[in-house]
Amino acid sequence: MPTDIEIARAATLKPITEIAAKAGIPEDALHLHGKHIAKVDDRFIAGLPKKEGAKLVLVTAISPTPAGEGKTTTTVGLGDALNHIGEKAIMCLREPSLGPVFGVKGGAAGGGKAQVIPMEQINLHFTGDFHAITSANNLLAALVDNSLYWGNPLNIDPRRIVFRRVLDMNDRTLRSIISGVGAPTNGYTREAGFDITVASEIMAIFCLANDLQDLEERISRIVVAYTPDRKPITAKDVDAQGSLGVLLRDALRPNMVQSIEGSPVFIHGGPFANIAHGCNSVIATTTAMKLADWTVTEAGFGADLGAEKFMDIKCRFSGLAPDVVVIVATVRALKMHGGMAKNDLKTENVEALKKGLVNLGRHIENTKKFGVPVVVAINHFFADTDAEIETLRDAVREDFGVEAVVCKHWADGAAGAEDLARAVVKIAGEEPSNFKPLYSEDLPLLEKVETIAKEIYRADKVTASPAIKKQLKDWEDAGYGKFPVCIAKTQNSFSSDPNAIGAPTGHTLPIREARLSAGAGFVVVVCGEIMTMPGLPKVPASANIKLLPDGTIDGIA
Amino acid sequence: MPTDIEIARAATLKPITEIAAKAGIPEDALHLHGKHIAKVDDRFIAGLPKKEGAKLVLVTAISPTPAGEGKTTTTVGLGDALNHIGEKAIMCLREPSLGPVFGVKGGAAGGGKAQVIPMEQINLHFTGDFHAITSANNLLAALVDNSLYWGNPLNIDPRRIVFRRVLDMNDRTLRSIISGVGAPTNGYTREAGFDITVASEIMAIFCLANDLQDLEERISRIVVAYTPDRKPITAKDVDAQGSLGVLLRDALRPNMVQSIEGSPVFIHGGPFANIAHGCNSVIATTTAMKLADWTVTEAGFGADLGAEKFMDIKCRFSGLAPDVVVIVATVRALKMHGGMAKNDLKTENVEALKKGLVNLGRHIENTKKFGVPVVVAINHFFADTDAEIETLRDAVREDFGVEAVVCKHWADGAAGAEDLARAVVKIAGEEPSNFKPLYSEDLPLLEKVETIAKEIYRADKVTASPAIKKQLKDWEDAGYGKFPVCIAKTQNSFSSDPNAIGAPTGHTLPIREARLSAGAGFVVVVCGEIMTMPGLPKVPASANIKLLPDGTIDGIA
Repeated sequence: MPTDIEIARAATLKPITEIAAKAGIPEDALHLHGKHIAKVDDRFIAGLPKKEGAKLVLVTAISPTPAGEGKTTTTVGLGDALNHIGEKAIMCLREPSLGPVFGVKGGAAGGGKAQVIPMEQINLHFTGDFHAITSANNLLAALVDNSLYWGNPLNIDPRRIVFRRVLDMNDRTLRSIISGVGAPTNGYTREAGFDITVASEIMAIFCLANDLQDLEERISRIVVAYTPDRKPITAKDVDAQGSLGVLLRDALRPNMVQSIEGSPVFIHGGPFANIAHGCNSVIATTTAMKLADWTVTEAGFGADLGAEKFMDIKCRFSGLAPDVVVIVATVRALKMHGGMAKNDLKTENVEALKKGLVNLGRHIENTKKFGVPVVVAINHFFADTDAEIETLRDAVREDFGVEAVVCKHWADGAAGAEDLARAVVKIAGEEPSNFKPLYSEDLPLLEKVETIAKEIYRADKVTASPAIKKQLKDWEDAGYGKFPVCIAKTQNSFSSDPNAIGAPTGHTLPIREARLSAGAGFVVVVCGEIMTMPGLPKVPASANIKLLPDGTIDGIA
Repeated sequence: MPTDIEIARAATLKPITEIAAKAGIPEDALHLHGKHIAKVDDRFIAGLPKKEGAKLVLVTAISPTPAGEGKTTTTVGLGDALNHIGEKAIMCLREPSLGPVFGVKGGAAGGGKAQVIPMEQINLHFTGDFHAITSANNLLAALVDNSLYWGNPLNIDPRRIVFRRVLDMNDRTLRSIISGVGAPTNGYTREAGFDITVASEIMAIFCLANDLQDLEERISRIVVAYTPDRKPITAKDVDAQGSLGVLLRDALRPNMVQSIEGSPVFIHGGPFANIAHGCNSVIATTTAMKLADWTVTEAGFGADLGAEKFMDIKCRFSGLAPDVVVIVATVRALKMHGGMAKNDLKTENVEALKKGLVNLGRHIENTKKFGVPVVVAINHFFADTDAEIETLRDAVREDFGVEAVVCKHWADGAAGAEDLARAVVKIAGEEPSNFKPLYSEDLPLLEKVETIAKEIYRADKVTASPAIKKQLKDWEDAGYGKFPVCIAKTQNSFSSDPNAIGAPTGHTLPIREARLSAGAGFVVVVCGEIMTMPGLPKVPASANIKLLPDGTIDGIA
């Protein structure tokens, strides 16, 4: 079996001008980054008319397990397959973060014959978007401390500076620091810290902005600190929005690359799926929908987090509405939800599979609550037995009443996902989407959390300290009450306990903390340990990443 | 008078493919970054033969004053003028740092009709080189702390981690921090800090490396920490060189842009001129010399720092040898060296000018010690009077025995520097360069400092504490004795006192500190307050930097 990287290297990259032309983008609307990556000009995008009948497909998944589901791979495979059967599709993916590439993670650009290329560039600096976001974030942070330094005209309470710095690096020692040490000229000593760039509110804003003006307006609203009497101080108060807009202007142009099969793919933005909404940029998605008949996109983690936020945050803000949701499931992962250990997964075990099906079933049920038709993609792995595959397919059809299609895009590329593409086209033609968000913007913040907890997580109740309840109430009074909520909890379970696999019920969702992302436009509700700055493992991947003598990059897989 | 930015905006940008073709670079050797910026492929460069008779011109200056000298402007004007008179020239400049753009500095890409364009991109993210260097620096820093965290197999003394983090941002609160605070999982608490990216040793290495392999070898040798018994721990010990090479591969390809007059210009790398050597990359300079008959480049600060390091560090390592040195002087600045206040400079004052001439005279004398012919470029300002200009020109010719040429490239572009170009061509034809570094690599480190102090700074003596002397001796014993020294002192005076303008003598050069840049290959000798992380001013430039409604960037000038 060739590895992902061997397949990627064996692929013939077409000039991106050719891929873009196929998507309807002329060469003079491209800002080339080498021969195989281009940014699409914002003036060209602004001039594109809305395309009637363009369909949006969201690819989401069951609750993640160490067995792997293949959401990105299926997004790529489905898009390729749609093009393969004569439809016109563009895929929209998130940009991978640089830091984790040198940790444990390796690359993130699909796999097998369902990959986006050039894989190494995409996983490294790519077009510099994350570097621009890092710069913008850290300029804002520096401006806040600088205002404090020069006489503190805004009356910033140094204990209440809430905007943190970021680096696109796994660096645990920066999670919590004391800054401004050593001399009066180094500023005021205070507690501070760094998150990884994907956790920046600037990243969330970048992915929710409709255009440059919206980007600047959202940036203006970021609450960076409070006065001693708890009055919010915003990015606008330190005159940051103009220079941050300048730093982000080029980055906000969506990046076009290609799949191994030659489909046009936008890869743009990549916020965390816990403390943020976990989807690629609105600009990329809406641009794709102006160019293609089918836009296939993905959301982070499982459907309880990713799809819910896609619907309740990204779609709510942008006016997007999915036409079909594809839920990716694997025999392997469902067997883990049925209690099997990772090392035993190569053994046929229909009983474990049947037991684990509850996880998929609930995701299907949940997703239907948004009024969108669902198709299940069974992402085939080599060790899956016929009995297992048939059990899974039949159960989905009979027990959950939706279509299930076996996909082999990893091994076979577009041809392997042709059945899925046809199923998606069929259901989109037969079953109109009646998309609506799960809750009204008019519900109080806590009731929004309770709605998600009840309807999606199936928790019995939500708990929060009086201080948190007061905090939510205060934000409502301050005008943030119409914000959607962005729940940060473990992705491994419907509950807040990562070990509660399958489809737990009767649990409690404990709110530990609430954070205001006033620029992004949501309230983050933290229900569990959320790590916003990863560390490196004992033997980091960096130890095996190197250049070969011919300049080829080795070790990013 | 149009401003720099108005002139830049009014300029017609040619496709960079056209500019590159003129320089002998075919389109398939370019990695385009939009239509007007390209990186040149390393394999193309490796295949270029050495060009016989190619000449290298270094542009340096008198000791900087607030009046301005115009070194970059003159570098651009001279290159344009050489092309204008039918020679074939490429200019090599340093990349501007992003952070200071939002502080006080504004842009750095020449001025008037002697500018490089596209100005805004060059001053912002450009091709992401500095971001790549930031990432590489911070990955190495994270790997060091990570090794400490996971059982400390290298026996790192947490008090003796000497490799700092960097950001391309003016952020005084990060100069000195306590990292690893708050929890055992956040690592070991220790003193740490950030420099601005241009101060990174990775930046110095980037600019001194002959190729990717040399880059990795130099990175391997960086001393990042010491054991409790003072044994050095290197980047190689944390397996960093491979992944840092991967992060820097694309960045190491030199960036080509154009001057307003359409000359090809390499802008690549930009290390500090105090704690590092202050020149653009060796790769850009050697590539230019393989393509053009004339390569015109600059070095940071005045000739005492910039030219000395260009000769003793960059040329020594790379085998480059300048054929002509152009020293830029202005009437304004020499009047300040003669004691005038900045606000009075518009008044004619031949006496102050005559008094200030000692500064220029000494730089000429110093530069000749390297065996290279010298031409003085009198960079004309509007308020300069004929009497002043004639006094200056005559004095240079008569008192210092070198040619002086009045230049008006700022106002008139190539035509304004035609006389300078002809003078440079003439002297290069008549006076062969007998370049040699100032001192032998075999001198002990302290004697190298003493040689520079005596021959260039004209100090009577060099002082250093016994601890510093022992440190230098220890490094000699450890095998670093053949390194050149890189003196970090004020750029405003030959001495270490920034207020001692003109041509001071009889002073003492006090060594305050010594640092080993084992990867870059020099010993930094700090003689004064050196700021490696700037702060933002009370009203940062960022407050006036913004996007206009049509997406144009405003406020970077």
